[in-house]
Amino acid sequence: MTLRVAVLPNSTTYLDAVLKSADAAVTSLDDAQALVWTSSDQTGFPSSLPANVEWVQLKSAGVKPWIDSGRIDSQRTWTSAVGAYSADVAEHAVALLLGCLRQFTLHARANTWLKEHTWGTVRSLRGRTVAIVGAGSIGRSMIPLLKAHGAEVIAVNRSGREVEGAERTVTSRDLDEALAAADDAVLAGASTDETQRLIGKEQLAALGSDPRDGSPGVLINIARGDLVDTAALTDALHRRIIGGAGLDVFDPEPLPAEDPLWGMDNVLITPHVANPQNRMLENFASLVEENLRRYASGRTLKAEIDLHRSY
Amino acid sequence: MTLRVAVLPNSTTYLDAVLKSADAAVTSLDDAQALVWTSSDQTGFPSSLPANVEWVQLKSAGVKPWIDSGRIDSQRTWTSAVGAYSADVAEHAVALLLGCLRQFTLHARANTWLKEHTWGTVRSLRGRTVAIVGAGSIGRSMIPLLKAHGAEVIAVNRSGREVEGAERTVTSRDLDEALAAADDAVLAGASTDETQRLIGKEQLAALGSDPRDGSPGVLINIARGDLVDTAALTDALHRRIIGGAGLDVFDPEPLPAEDPLWGMDNVLITPHVANPQNRMLENFASLVEENLRRYASGRTLKAEIDLHRSY
Repeated sequence: MTLRVAVLPNSTTYLDAVLKSADAAVTSLDDAQALVWTSSDQTGFPSSLPANVEWVQLKSAGVKPWIDSGRIDSQRTWTSAVGAYSADVAEHAVALLLGCLRQFTLHARANTWLKEHTWGTVRSLRGRTVAIVGAGSIGRSMIPLLKAHGAEVIAVNRSGREVEGAERTVTSRDLDEALAAADDAVLAGASTDETQRLIGKEQLAALGSDPRDGSPGVLINIARGDLVDTAALTDALHRRIIGGAGLDVFDPEPLPAEDPLWGMDNVLITPHVANPQNRMLENFASLVEENLRRYASGRTLKAEIDLHRSY
Repeated sequence: MTLRVAVLPNSTTYLDAVLKSADAAVTSLDDAQALVWTSSDQTGFPSSLPANVEWVQLKSAGVKPWIDSGRIDSQRTWTSAVGAYSADVAEHAVALLLGCLRQFTLHARANTWLKEHTWGTVRSLRGRTVAIVGAGSIGRSMIPLLKAHGAEVIAVNRSGREVEGAERTVTSRDLDEALAAADDAVLAGASTDETQRLIGKEQLAALGSDPRDGSPGVLINIARGDLVDTAALTDALHRRIIGGAGLDVFDPEPLPAEDPLWGMDNVLITPHVANPQNRMLENFASLVEENLRRYASGRTLKAEIDLHRSY
C-alpha cells in the first residue's frame, strides 16, 4: 500500500530520492498519514494537525523547544532525529578537544613562529581521561574515537548504568567527583529541566583541580548552551581555572558580538556547525527512509519522543 | 656489568631516572661505551669520538642533517629516535586534518557568528579517503585513528608492500594516482634525497581533482618542510586548487614572518610542535631505557640508522 506523506515546509533532493525509493506519495497535509517536517525550528508549523496524520517526523535531535511550546501532542506518534547526527557531532567534539589541547586558537591567530612559547604547553590527548557528561547517542559515539586516541573515558549518565567502552560509569549525582577525576570533560547530554546550568562554578573548579603537568583540563560543549552557566565559564577561563574550552553551542545563540569569549586565546569557538549542513540533510533522509520502512510494516519507529523524559 | 654512558650536552630528570634504574654509570666520553646525545641539533657535538664509544643514541627521529654533515660514521652503531614519537605526531596530524575540515582557522579568527558562512562548508572526516604518503612509523600510527574516525586509507610507500589497515597500498611511483583517488593527504615520510619536493604543482592538482561536494582535499604535513614545494603549495592554496593545508613543518624553519601562508584562512599553522616537549623528553627516555637493555644483552638496538637509506 502506498504511504501518503506530507513534506513541509520544503523537501530536499536527498528526501525526494528517499520518498521515491519508498514508493511514497507526497500529498497535502489533509491526505497524509505522516508529516515530515524539514525545518529545525517551529516557524510555519501547522497550528493544528488533522486526525489523519498519525506520525510526525521532526528534523531536530534536541526537541525541548517543541515540548516547551506544547506542540507535541499525545494523539499521534512524534519522532525526533536523535541519534541521526551523532557520529558527525562526536567527531566535532573530538576535533574541538584536540584543537584545545594543541592550542589551535592561539596558533591560528599567530603571525609569527610561537614554538618557544607553545612547544612546552601543547598537550597530547593520549593518556588523558575524559568525562563524557550525558552518555546518550553522541556520547557513546565518542567513546571509540577517544579510545583510539589513547584516552580513557568516565561516562556520566542519569542511571549510572554501565556504558560500553567506558572505564567506568557514574550517575549524575557524582558529576563533581567525575569532573575532578577526569582531565577533560565533554558535554553531550540533552537540554532538559534537570540539566539547565549543570556546569557552574563548582563543577568548573572540580574540572580544573589536580592538573596534569600543571595544565588544567578542557571543557567541550557540543550539546546545548544552557547546560553551562556562561558567566561562570567565562570567569574560569579568564582566571585559567580550566585550561580551555571548545564550544559549538551557546546561550543565547548566536553568541553576541560583544561577548568576551570571542577574544580569549584559550577558547575555540565554532558557530553551531558540529553537524555539517550537507551531512545533516543526508543523515536526516536516511532516518526518514528507515522510519518509513518501519511505519509501513507497523514496527516501532526510531527516536520516538517520550514526553515524560523531554527528549 | 655496569654500563658506562656519557650523556651530552645535558640530561633530563626522565633520563636520570632511566639511567639509575638501568644501573648505568654516567661517565665522561673517554670512558663511555655509549653516548646519549640529548639535543635535537648538532651544535656542540664532539668533533671526533673516541674508539671506546660503541654506540651513539640520537634524539632526533629524522637524521638527514646528521647524515648530510658526515657525522655518522661506520665505526660504531648509531641509533635515531624514529618511532619513539610517532603516536603523538600521528595525533597532531589527525588534529590538523580535522581542524582544516572543520575550518578552525577561519573560526578561531572570527569575532562574530559565521554560521551562515560556514555551516554549508565545514566537512566531516567520516567517509573520506586519506592518502598517507610515507607509511613509516608515524603513518602506520595514523591508520587506526583514521579508521576509528570512519575514514579509509590509501598507503603510499616505496615498496608498495601492503600496509596493515590500509584499504590499499601503492608504490611511490603511483603517488599522483593515489592523490587523485584520495580526498585528503598526509605527508608522513622521511626527508631523503628522493623525497625532496615530492609534492609540487602536479601533485597538488591531483589532490585537488574530483572534489567531494565541491570541496577539494586538504594537505597535512607533519613530516619535513622540504617534502613540499612551498611556492607551489602557496599558489594552490591561494587559487583554492586544494581545500586547505595543516602544516607543522616548513622549509625554512622558522617560517619567516613575511610568508603569505600566515595570512590564509584555509591554512592551519603550528610551529613544529606535533611532538610536545614534555612528551618528547618522556618518550626519548623510554627509548633510551629499551636500548640500554638491548645493548646490555647484546641484542640489536631499536632504530639503528641505515646509512644507505638515510633514515
